[in-house]
Amino acid sequence: MSGTGRRRLPRQVREQQIIDAGVRVFSKRGYHAAVVDEIAELADISKPMVYLYFGSKEGLFIACIRREGERLTRGFQEAASAGKSADEQLWAGLSAFFGYVAATRDGWVVLYRQAPEQGGEIAAEVRRQREAVMAAVVELVRSGASGSGALAERGGRDAEFVAHALVGAADSLTGWMADHPGETPDKVTLRLMNMVWVGMRNVLDGEVWVPPDGDSAAGE
Amino acid sequence: MSGTGRRRLPRQVREQQIIDAGVRVFSKRGYHAAVVDEIAELADISKPMVYLYFGSKEGLFIACIRREGERLTRGFQEAASAGKSADEQLWAGLSAFFGYVAATRDGWVVLYRQAPEQGGEIAAEVRRQREAVMAAVVELVRSGASGSGALAERGGRDAEFVAHALVGAADSLTGWMADHPGETPDKVTLRLMNMVWVGMRNVLDGEVWVPPDGDSAAGE
Repeated sequence: MSGTGRRRLPRQVREQQIIDAGVRVFSKRGYHAAVVDEIAELADISKPMVYLYFGSKEGLFIACIRREGERLTRGFQEAASAGKSADEQLWAGLSAFFGYVAATRDGWVVLYRQAPEQGGEIAAEVRRQREAVMAAVVELVRSGASGSGALAERGGRDAEFVAHALVGAADSLTGWMADHPGETPDKVTLRLMNMVWVGMRNVLDGEVWVPPDGDSAAGE
Repeated sequence: MSGTGRRRLPRQVREQQIIDAGVRVFSKRGYHAAVVDEIAELADISKPMVYLYFGSKEGLFIACIRREGERLTRGFQEAASAGKSADEQLWAGLSAFFGYVAATRDGWVVLYRQAPEQGGEIAAEVRRQREAVMAAVVELVRSGASGSGALAERGGRDAEFVAHALVGAADSLTGWMADHPGETPDKVTLRLMNMVWVGMRNVLDGEVWVPPDGDSAAGE
């Protein structure tokens, strides 16, 4: 491990360099068209070293998915910090998510546009990262609800339900945000807060909507 | 086209028979493990006929995705029928969706669990069906909002936003519903109505949540 130049970097640093280059090249070229030569060159690391660390192009792609997924999960964990009210935590979580999408455009393309279209091991890693994100959001919802009696009382299932709805809505909105450059992360977060929180608050206060039962009860 | 037995069925009927069998076998075996022999046998149609109609196993799988996607889209279009208030339309749309998922379990497995893990042409068809579903939901939201001034005034973009959030939330909740047998389509629909509608109604009335701006404005 002694020597000059690139060889002196610790393995972890070199791995991150390769993943950074991988995310950029995969995002630009697509998974199938991307070649390891270009990634190695961009990372300023030899091609055999890329294979030594990641085994294959697929292995590197999976490492990219994992790193990007972990970044997202960390954002939610930080949002769930102590001393914030429920709506502040939700706002912080949604901001972290849409902020990640806008700031890490290449990572988002790999994670949301390319990875879900692959099969096999890659699909399995996408599922794992999605589950980790979901677990972090469930914690965020639980932590936000712990101050407000109703949801906390009803236990984990309500938090799971809300987390699945939020993650699904936010995932779906990433594509919409990308198609509308005027819709900044802050604007999209505010839209979603208005849609779900102003509602969630009333549910927490005990208000319950009931489906129409024969008569058209719901007025304007 | 004259003759006896299976040959007398019109092409469209035979195609639907093959698609029915395809959805059942794909759902049970998975896309890669499914074999056309089993599908042909279940449909009581010769294997060459399956290839004549659909070209390949991939072609048949794509036809299955299309048929299931169209069923879903039709459910939303019916929900957007005249003479219903906004919340009744939303309730009907969500009921149609979660009802489809529960009643057409094989179709849902193909559309939501198997198809998204494939690449190429299959992924393209999944995208097309998703876009068609989205367009139907945008129409549903628009039609529901047309009676209430605020959203209708603000035009198509709000309806698109709400539709993306709803479709994403509902898609994500299908997996959660499948993992919790006690959560019937009606219960899940009611949960989602409470989460988003009780909120949406207040937004339509002009209530706006604003993010915390330094001070912790949001109450408990």
